[in-house]
Amino acid sequence: MTDTTYMKLALQLASATNGQTNPNPMVGAVVVKNGEIVGVGAHLRAGEAHAEVHALQMAGEKAQGATLYVTLEPCNHFGKTPPCTEQIIQSGIARVVIATQDNNPLVAGSGIKKLQEASIMVETGLLAEEATQLNNIFFHTIQHKKPYVTLKTAMSLDGKIASTTGESKWITGSQARMDVHQYRHQHDAILVGVNTIIADNPSLTTRLPNGGKNPIRIILDTHLRTPLSAKVLHDNAAPTWLVTGARVSEEQIRQYESYASILSMPTERISVPNLLQVLYEQGISSLFVEGGSQIHASFIESHMYNQLVIYMSGHLIGGQQAPTFFGGTGFSLQDAPKLYIASVEQMGDDIKLIARRKEENYVYRHY
Amino acid sequence: MTDTTYMKLALQLASATNGQTNPNPMVGAVVVKNGEIVGVGAHLRAGEAHAEVHALQMAGEKAQGATLYVTLEPCNHFGKTPPCTEQIIQSGIARVVIATQDNNPLVAGSGIKKLQEASIMVETGLLAEEATQLNNIFFHTIQHKKPYVTLKTAMSLDGKIASTTGESKWITGSQARMDVHQYRHQHDAILVGVNTIIADNPSLTTRLPNGGKNPIRIILDTHLRTPLSAKVLHDNAAPTWLVTGARVSEEQIRQYESYASILSMPTERISVPNLLQVLYEQGISSLFVEGGSQIHASFIESHMYNQLVIYMSGHLIGGQQAPTFFGGTGFSLQDAPKLYIASVEQMGDDIKLIARRKEENYVYRHY
Repeated sequence: MTDTTYMKLALQLASATNGQTNPNPMVGAVVVKNGEIVGVGAHLRAGEAHAEVHALQMAGEKAQGATLYVTLEPCNHFGKTPPCTEQIIQSGIARVVIATQDNNPLVAGSGIKKLQEASIMVETGLLAEEATQLNNIFFHTIQHKKPYVTLKTAMSLDGKIASTTGESKWITGSQARMDVHQYRHQHDAILVGVNTIIADNPSLTTRLPNGGKNPIRIILDTHLRTPLSAKVLHDNAAPTWLVTGARVSEEQIRQYESYASILSMPTERISVPNLLQVLYEQGISSLFVEGGSQIHASFIESHMYNQLVIYMSGHLIGGQQAPTFFGGTGFSLQDAPKLYIASVEQMGDDIKLIARRKEENYVYRHY
Repeated sequence: MTDTTYMKLALQLASATNGQTNPNPMVGAVVVKNGEIVGVGAHLRAGEAHAEVHALQMAGEKAQGATLYVTLEPCNHFGKTPPCTEQIIQSGIARVVIATQDNNPLVAGSGIKKLQEASIMVETGLLAEEATQLNNIFFHTIQHKKPYVTLKTAMSLDGKIASTTGESKWITGSQARMDVHQYRHQHDAILVGVNTIIADNPSLTTRLPNGGKNPIRIILDTHLRTPLSAKVLHDNAAPTWLVTGARVSEEQIRQYESYASILSMPTERISVPNLLQVLYEQGISSLFVEGGSQIHASFIESHMYNQLVIYMSGHLIGGQQAPTFFGGTGFSLQDAPKLYIASVEQMGDDIKLIARRKEENYVYRHY
């Protein structure tokens, strides 16, 4: 068993909590003494104990002289819980191995400094890339003060999201569609256009074998055309927010007020940058966009997205008029953004591609 | 060293000859005696010695009592060379391990039978899938009497093969573009539409670091609109065939006769099934289609293709009017063919997807 083995375990503990720690990051911790694991922990929910504290409590007196492996720099400030650094120092831990520094300005290196001042040996950067990727939403939000935006689509081998007559159920198989529910569970909010509500009357909830958390449902509805009978207004499964342009009347809004929150934007057409700012202020740190051609175009053409999740089937649909996931006016080849393809995974008969903007690689600063 | 190790070596020898054995299959052979390799061989070119013969010649008297590993059933008929079975029997080989049976009706099990009658121990089916895949073009041609058709495209992450203004140079990077030249080298013929000739005036030759074989250049040109100044008519790099519809005059044809062969089809519009039959009769067993939206549509909508090679970049091009690789009228979701995605490979910044029709899985018959 090496440092890497223990840090991997800490990362596994952290990633197991995906979807339940927002707005906090996922964090895992392992305490090892004389080659034996004496404590494990994970941060389970915002407001509750941090991963290190759980692991130290399990270790009890065995923490004395032991090594603590933790996936994120321990906090050094009083938030909803007391600073972890204090508890690490009091426990008698001799050495702390950290995967990534916390870029939260309230922490940002001060936790490490505090431990070092207490003569604890601190090493940083072990499996930093994995740990950073795990919390990319958290790091993004802290740094940019905007939600982390994931655009999701399902398309055929030839790039079509529907046939010329608009059929799209189903291009991909059940395994890919289940994977989408995992994303819904992990996100604070899901966003669709009003045309999706009118055409499909979806519930936009998370349906996983073991349940799951429903995201807040955000409908882009410039002119308030959501049918008053829409499922999302009546099922009480999760809050529903209707985002409108400036040209909707008080009277229109009143019809919806008992069933949904109305976010009236100050401009006639909804501006994606403005919308994301409002959503961030409302506490949304991750947004899952299940758009059609035009919704995706409005995010892509305003450069307001972080990653794309593309499910691709083996179908050949064709048709000059059949839509692709990014419609709009498009870019010249020179101006077209070039994403890096981060992963390709088989998913039943389909494949899942994840592509990210290059600037989304948060590089861990060693120091 | 096991049987599998030696058969893998035989397969490597075979695949190294990709592009140079047409219309014959690629075949490799290894002779092993007392755990030592005493002979290796590959079939290098149609009309020349078969793989087994090369390997047995190298082995000389050591073939006595040895094992022969060969990727395809040895032939048992007089073609351009005498039957391999005779030479195997005369060499004193004690055991023959074969990957796949030859589905050429002139062989089809008779080689195996002949060896068994001479009291040689014969085993078949080792690494059969790899060996079958290696010669999928050969097996297809023998069985269907049509060229094996590969459709090639380069598209953005959102499925576009060009921007709304028609720019397509270059969506993919140099590594993907070099890979295309490997395919040109391996194919008997390359096919494009006349619009590609008019727009780009390409040479359609193979440009690999170590040279390579140029494919025959086939231009679909219903109305004979190829410019008389086109490179493919004057560079003498490879034969050029212009395929026309029925409505072109003798006079039109005469203008091109010194520079190209004219294949006049009997119908006003070119029918892909008819075309493939003519090409097969002209000795084309593999066709590499570098089409645009409409050329690909004519092959896909007539179900006349075997595999797709898709190079996909990380670009987001967008635009409702920007073309995808399969235009035409398209299919309903129910009628859309569903290919299986056979492989995904990273290629520089791009990925390469290979998708095949399900019926293209030649399953080796064990017996």
